[in-house]
Amino acid sequence: MNTTSEMPSGPAVAPTSVRVDGARLWRSLMDLAQLGATPRGGVRRLALTDIDRQARDLVVGWLRETDAEIEVDAAGNIFATRHGRSDAAAVVLTGSHIDTQPSGGKFDGNYGVLAGLEVLRTLKDADIVTENPVGVAIWTNEEGSRFVPVMGGSGAFAGVFTLEHLLQQRDGDGITFGEALERIGYAGTAPVGKRRLDAYFEAHIEQGPVLEREDKVIGVVTGALGLRWYDCIWSGQDAHAGPTPMEARRDALRGASRMVEAVHALAVRHAPDGRGTVGFMHVGPNSRNVIPGLVKMTVDLRHPDDEDLATMDRELRDAAAVVAHDLRLECALQQVDHFAASRFDPRCVDAVRAAVRALGYPHREMVSGAGHDAIYVARVAPTAMIFVPCKDGLSHNETEDARPEHLEAGANVLLLAVLARAGGRSRK
Amino acid sequence: MNTTSEMPSGPAVAPTSVRVDGARLWRSLMDLAQLGATPRGGVRRLALTDIDRQARDLVVGWLRETDAEIEVDAAGNIFATRHGRSDAAAVVLTGSHIDTQPSGGKFDGNYGVLAGLEVLRTLKDADIVTENPVGVAIWTNEEGSRFVPVMGGSGAFAGVFTLEHLLQQRDGDGITFGEALERIGYAGTAPVGKRRLDAYFEAHIEQGPVLEREDKVIGVVTGALGLRWYDCIWSGQDAHAGPTPMEARRDALRGASRMVEAVHALAVRHAPDGRGTVGFMHVGPNSRNVIPGLVKMTVDLRHPDDEDLATMDRELRDAAAVVAHDLRLECALQQVDHFAASRFDPRCVDAVRAAVRALGYPHREMVSGAGHDAIYVARVAPTAMIFVPCKDGLSHNETEDARPEHLEAGANVLLLAVLARAGGRSRK
Repeated sequence: MNTTSEMPSGPAVAPTSVRVDGARLWRSLMDLAQLGATPRGGVRRLALTDIDRQARDLVVGWLRETDAEIEVDAAGNIFATRHGRSDAAAVVLTGSHIDTQPSGGKFDGNYGVLAGLEVLRTLKDADIVTENPVGVAIWTNEEGSRFVPVMGGSGAFAGVFTLEHLLQQRDGDGITFGEALERIGYAGTAPVGKRRLDAYFEAHIEQGPVLEREDKVIGVVTGALGLRWYDCIWSGQDAHAGPTPMEARRDALRGASRMVEAVHALAVRHAPDGRGTVGFMHVGPNSRNVIPGLVKMTVDLRHPDDEDLATMDRELRDAAAVVAHDLRLECALQQVDHFAASRFDPRCVDAVRAAVRALGYPHREMVSGAGHDAIYVARVAPTAMIFVPCKDGLSHNETEDARPEHLEAGANVLLLAVLARAGGRSRK
Repeated sequence: MNTTSEMPSGPAVAPTSVRVDGARLWRSLMDLAQLGATPRGGVRRLALTDIDRQARDLVVGWLRETDAEIEVDAAGNIFATRHGRSDAAAVVLTGSHIDTQPSGGKFDGNYGVLAGLEVLRTLKDADIVTENPVGVAIWTNEEGSRFVPVMGGSGAFAGVFTLEHLLQQRDGDGITFGEALERIGYAGTAPVGKRRLDAYFEAHIEQGPVLEREDKVIGVVTGALGLRWYDCIWSGQDAHAGPTPMEARRDALRGASRMVEAVHALAVRHAPDGRGTVGFMHVGPNSRNVIPGLVKMTVDLRHPDDEDLATMDRELRDAAAVVAHDLRLECALQQVDHFAASRFDPRCVDAVRAAVRALGYPHREMVSGAGHDAIYVARVAPTAMIFVPCKDGLSHNETEDARPEHLEAGANVLLLAVLARAGGRSRK
């Protein structure tokens, strides 16, 4: 029953003229960045530390000011929920994380949470009542820097692993996730998962250079790259660099070096979305005048299409075999991890697309190359993501930077996408 | 005045029918290898340790039994000298070292010293009086494993650096070379250098695969490769392996990998004696999912001709510039050490060549790729070296191995070369 003239009944049509306050969003980002601030302008805020607790307290306080109700689940995930006309309706959720890398920046994760906060603030200021409740999530331990697995809170939420598994993880000092969570007072009582979500939207800095290079303001994220991780060991023969003629060598580093180029070449063949990276290499015995007999390296292959990724896997194995044969080396290549490619929900992506068009921002469609809470949440709820540019594409870095107008634009897209999904009207 | 019928006057002509006792040489090698023996069949006998003292005592005892006089110089170099007809004549010296790598073998260095011992034993058994005195040197700290510089004793002998410099060097525990030398009782009183040498011959395992592959028994060593050592730093940009498209990357490991191939290719262009090795590489940040922004590596170039080596230097610098340009990287390439190529004394080499031919061993001429005491001694005395095969070309390794008949052959070549130089006749 609706008795107030300000809340007429009838179909809810979201207003499209409402906008976030970009300056307020920026101030909140800068205020939050004080907690764990590093001398070089970055942030060090490892999950479930005292700094994380302070940051949680600060953001929860801000969220409460929007009249949102706060719940904390047993994984430490925080849910701030603003009532809708129909609280029985599924929540339209947004959010991200506020833990950082050891040498992290101000925007990775933090932006998604505070863009959500800014949406709630804007809804309150505009006195908008949505049909569905609108919520902001702060997921625990996304970075995985203190505790593995990465994306721990959202992974438990999505049932990728159990709560018990998560709580038993230990940091480098032997402290469990569960102990750390208790200690900072964020071991909540709400069950993990089991929330009815109408949709999940996550705004994030791109963490890559594409938007900046193409002078786009918004990335409409349609999915995430599939990923295969490999360990690779090249075995040859240690030998003295002086007396050993070139043709007599079995130089494991030559095998590894050719593999670096092969990985690059095969990723380029799967352009524009293929990725191939050798990030780790250890040379043995690693002495100036000894031909290396052993090299360990990793390979990271990514592609938004699982079939293409399977082709890349075959090409990698073929390349390794050819190089090993040509250089008379042994190559042990083993896949050690695998994430399937994910495609976000078409209707959620449409909501983002429509919002961007309504706002007139230069944009492009893209896939996420990195892991995000959204990729796990997508397993249990219709999901999409919104990317904004970051300076030089840098993230996981103290110099991570983003422009206020881009952050504002992304928050406006988030606002309109949320409203399109949640419905609502102004009481003003 | 010569009054004995056994020692007629007149020109001394060395006998060519005398031969070493290969079984005795082998027994001495095996006996010496007990001192510092490792479970895997190698030897760990670092310079100026108690084990080194025991080994010196053992070999000095054997040398005394040949009636040689023992002197020790202030660098701990030991000289065992067997009288000749003319003790005023310059000494024909042979020798090597008995310190080993931390995981060294039974033959590196030890063979040259014990082949010299076997020459003295043979001369005594055959009752041969040489014209010139014949000596065996045991040079201190050739390996450089405990104290830098490598070839410390022979380097001080040749005036490459001063005795004071050598004595001040500290091991990893802060103990000086001088203190360690005093402690084991081998800080001698003889001046370092200033010995009149007629010639210096050093027998050694090849430490490379050439003789074995070509089924040769003796390497007539005509000189040593010149050497240039470089440090090389590739700088690009750390970036996330997922979101960063291939064409946007500045991957320092790709630069380093191309350099590995370029180093190999330029050495092959300077076949058969050119050498090029990347033995050391450190990747930063060395994380599986981060494109490396920084790679440090070394380059080791060698060639027996200094002009060719200078050409290789230019080719290396050109290759670095091309790779840096093509991959949009910075490359800092710095030469950090340099040994000129050395050519051994033609008459000493001739003496070795003539001995090999007289003995009929399959042989080839070659240059030494590794450093040896002979290379420093060559700066102050006519010098040549004799190589014998080692199994699989392996050295600086506990599995280092050599065949008794090859070691015997090398000692026979040494004997005849020494006799050719020193003159002499049998009293029998």
